[in-house]
Amino acid sequence: MVPSPDTHPPLRVAVLGCGVVGTEVVRRLVTDGDELAARVGARLELVGIGVRDADVERDPVVDRALLTTDATSLVEKADVVVEVMGGIEPARTLLLHAVAHGAGVVTANKALLAQDGPTLYAAADAAGVDLYYEAAVAGAIPIVRPVREQLAGDTVQRVLGIVNGTTNYVLDTMTTQGLGLDEVVAEAQRLGYAEADPTADVEGYDAAAKAAILASLAFHTRVGLDDVDRTGITGLSADDVAWAARTGHVLKLLAVAERATGQDGTAGVLVRVQPVLVTADHPLASVRGAFNAVFVEAEAAGELMFYGRGAGGAPTSSAVLGDLVQVARHRVLGGKGPVESSYAALPVLPAGDARSRYQVRLEVADRPGVLAAVAGALADQGVSVEAVRQTTALDADGRPVATLVITTHTATERAVRATVDVVDALDAVHRVVQVLPVL
Amino acid sequence: MVPSPDTHPPLRVAVLGCGVVGTEVVRRLVTDGDELAARVGARLELVGIGVRDADVERDPVVDRALLTTDATSLVEKADVVVEVMGGIEPARTLLLHAVAHGAGVVTANKALLAQDGPTLYAAADAAGVDLYYEAAVAGAIPIVRPVREQLAGDTVQRVLGIVNGTTNYVLDTMTTQGLGLDEVVAEAQRLGYAEADPTADVEGYDAAAKAAILASLAFHTRVGLDDVDRTGITGLSADDVAWAARTGHVLKLLAVAERATGQDGTAGVLVRVQPVLVTADHPLASVRGAFNAVFVEAEAAGELMFYGRGAGGAPTSSAVLGDLVQVARHRVLGGKGPVESSYAALPVLPAGDARSRYQVRLEVADRPGVLAAVAGALADQGVSVEAVRQTTALDADGRPVATLVITTHTATERAVRATVDVVDALDAVHRVVQVLPVL
Repeated sequence: MVPSPDTHPPLRVAVLGCGVVGTEVVRRLVTDGDELAARVGARLELVGIGVRDADVERDPVVDRALLTTDATSLVEKADVVVEVMGGIEPARTLLLHAVAHGAGVVTANKALLAQDGPTLYAAADAAGVDLYYEAAVAGAIPIVRPVREQLAGDTVQRVLGIVNGTTNYVLDTMTTQGLGLDEVVAEAQRLGYAEADPTADVEGYDAAAKAAILASLAFHTRVGLDDVDRTGITGLSADDVAWAARTGHVLKLLAVAERATGQDGTAGVLVRVQPVLVTADHPLASVRGAFNAVFVEAEAAGELMFYGRGAGGAPTSSAVLGDLVQVARHRVLGGKGPVESSYAALPVLPAGDARSRYQVRLEVADRPGVLAAVAGALADQGVSVEAVRQTTALDADGRPVATLVITTHTATERAVRATVDVVDALDAVHRVVQVLPVL
Repeated sequence: MVPSPDTHPPLRVAVLGCGVVGTEVVRRLVTDGDELAARVGARLELVGIGVRDADVERDPVVDRALLTTDATSLVEKADVVVEVMGGIEPARTLLLHAVAHGAGVVTANKALLAQDGPTLYAAADAAGVDLYYEAAVAGAIPIVRPVREQLAGDTVQRVLGIVNGTTNYVLDTMTTQGLGLDEVVAEAQRLGYAEADPTADVEGYDAAAKAAILASLAFHTRVGLDDVDRTGITGLSADDVAWAARTGHVLKLLAVAERATGQDGTAGVLVRVQPVLVTADHPLASVRGAFNAVFVEAEAAGELMFYGRGAGGAPTSSAVLGDLVQVARHRVLGGKGPVESSYAALPVLPAGDARSRYQVRLEVADRPGVLAAVAGALADQGVSVEAVRQTTALDADGRPVATLVITTHTATERAVRATVDVVDALDAVHRVVQVLPVL
């Protein structure tokens, strides 16, 4: 029997933060109140909204009487606290205060969880309350709970994700319009797809936080932000994008988390964020604009893909509300969500252990024997060649420039980097233009 | 704290059925025993496997000592019963017996749930035990729980699914190889993608059962198998597939569940299975072979897609094990899964209320005035035309046959069917070859 909202006392919900996402969460609580009550078995009563500045103008759906700058007192009187303020502090302190006072917690705070998740998980567990965070990774797309719960009976081998809408929008626009990075980032800012300070997105910090969270869930192992080998998109050019297309790939910024074996045979995990040349017929290649997608490879399930809007007020509010209903149901019906599962405690291997095919693009002297020299250097390092293209074009000053594009067979990143250093030193090689992994 | 498998007594698991899926479930319980125990907090002890015939040869991973034909006694001594035997009876009786004896239930039985779900949901609820069924829809792909739980805070507007691998494989092969239906079905049977009796798949019964389940979850309304307007793929030809490609579409068998408004303004739902011309750049168009995908449109989340393997022993076992871990966690930690949510009780509207664009293909007399006659008939019925193509070709006897392909603007199915009847009666129209909705 689902208890009736007519008989069960209302659940007191506090929302911390009233920005783009917070406003949408409030909107749904206000406009869908009856539906939510029917689904939970009790009315969800918004008892306060914690903000930094109570005087700022707000969307009319926000009842100004509920605004408060005293978030500390607010969380003490809530049954469930929804944290959509972001940032490390004061979010961390407020969440710990909330769980200490017996409130269940729903958060979207990827940076906090990637940096200090275990502290919060342990505190919630010790207090016997729920901690849910679907909205922390890939916005509206259910991915945290599918990995945390539905795949809890399976063995996840690898997770590949386009988890940052800003960078996917930028790369997709560079691809379709042939423009350079800075120009497209500026356009993205104008359209609201990128922040005034886009560093967190374009340098891959946002994706790295999500990678850490996904890896922790997928491998039942603690992976923090510092464990993620991170490369953003700032080193990419319009030429890189053009060469991706020419060789049948699409350039994507991917969060990659995979089981791997270290140099000494140790079983471990590798977690990284980096630009990757994705083969054009891979499902991830078709993820356009600001959409996100997470591609999961599991032992029994095989390949799964979850696709949708990774950011934005309304999409993120969908994930928050889904968690809120779950936490609320537990308060009404009993029960508790999963706790941190880190029993596997796999070591995080060094980035150099990653194995992949690579595409190496070189500017070389336009004369015979260059390919032989380069191929010889690769062979010496044990890196074998899968494909080679060589083209000659005139540079801005009208001089002939030869470009050599080599696709290697699978090799460790360590071996490829060493190879690239050797190749770079060859007389015949003017410069190493780009080295990118290939999926 | 996750209880330790060292201190918590084992949970007794009974598996009913030991076919393709049952064998894989057993395999995972045997080979992943330690991992599962760590994730649940108690060991999952397989106490018996109910089968029809204990003498049949089995995969060596199956401990023959566990086989029993007395499933009734078996379920009485289990903490969790996994039902992967399929069919209505004796599955229904055994599941009711299991919940009456306090066992949690995990099932993959779409036919049973589509036909008699409410009886089972009510029985489990009354007994205070869990009933989970992720494996009943789209195999390995998490979709039941995402809709049931993660989207519980959102409003689902429409669900579009490729949920039958056999028919998707057949249509995809007809598309890529230009072959006829019967030939491809025979090949699918040889490869194991279709059953000896393929009726349940090709006539859309399997997809219809899944459509009923998804609709019930998405709209918090009871939708049964009989509520689903069902058309399979047996009426499709190589010509239909070729014309789909010519007009920029891909032919797919879709399960469609959507909110709609009836003729008298009533809010209701429409649920159907039918072949649909999917625009080539829609994400569903790229779902190949025996893969499945479910495309969800929700108010806050926007568009979501879940993609993966919809059938097969290992993929389905992934979903079963995910549910088993959840039910087991509840037994160890307390708590309970969601119960049936049907409070919305929306009426299921008649199929004729469905609104879509349609593609109508006619064989017409090869003379002037035909298009005018047909267009006039459409206009009389209030159906407006979006696009028209006319081609002439020679039939097998060398006679010129003119084909007129009309794409309508959005109209109700009722209006289009009436229009087609009128058009069929025109002298100029030899026959109506095909009428298909367009997505």
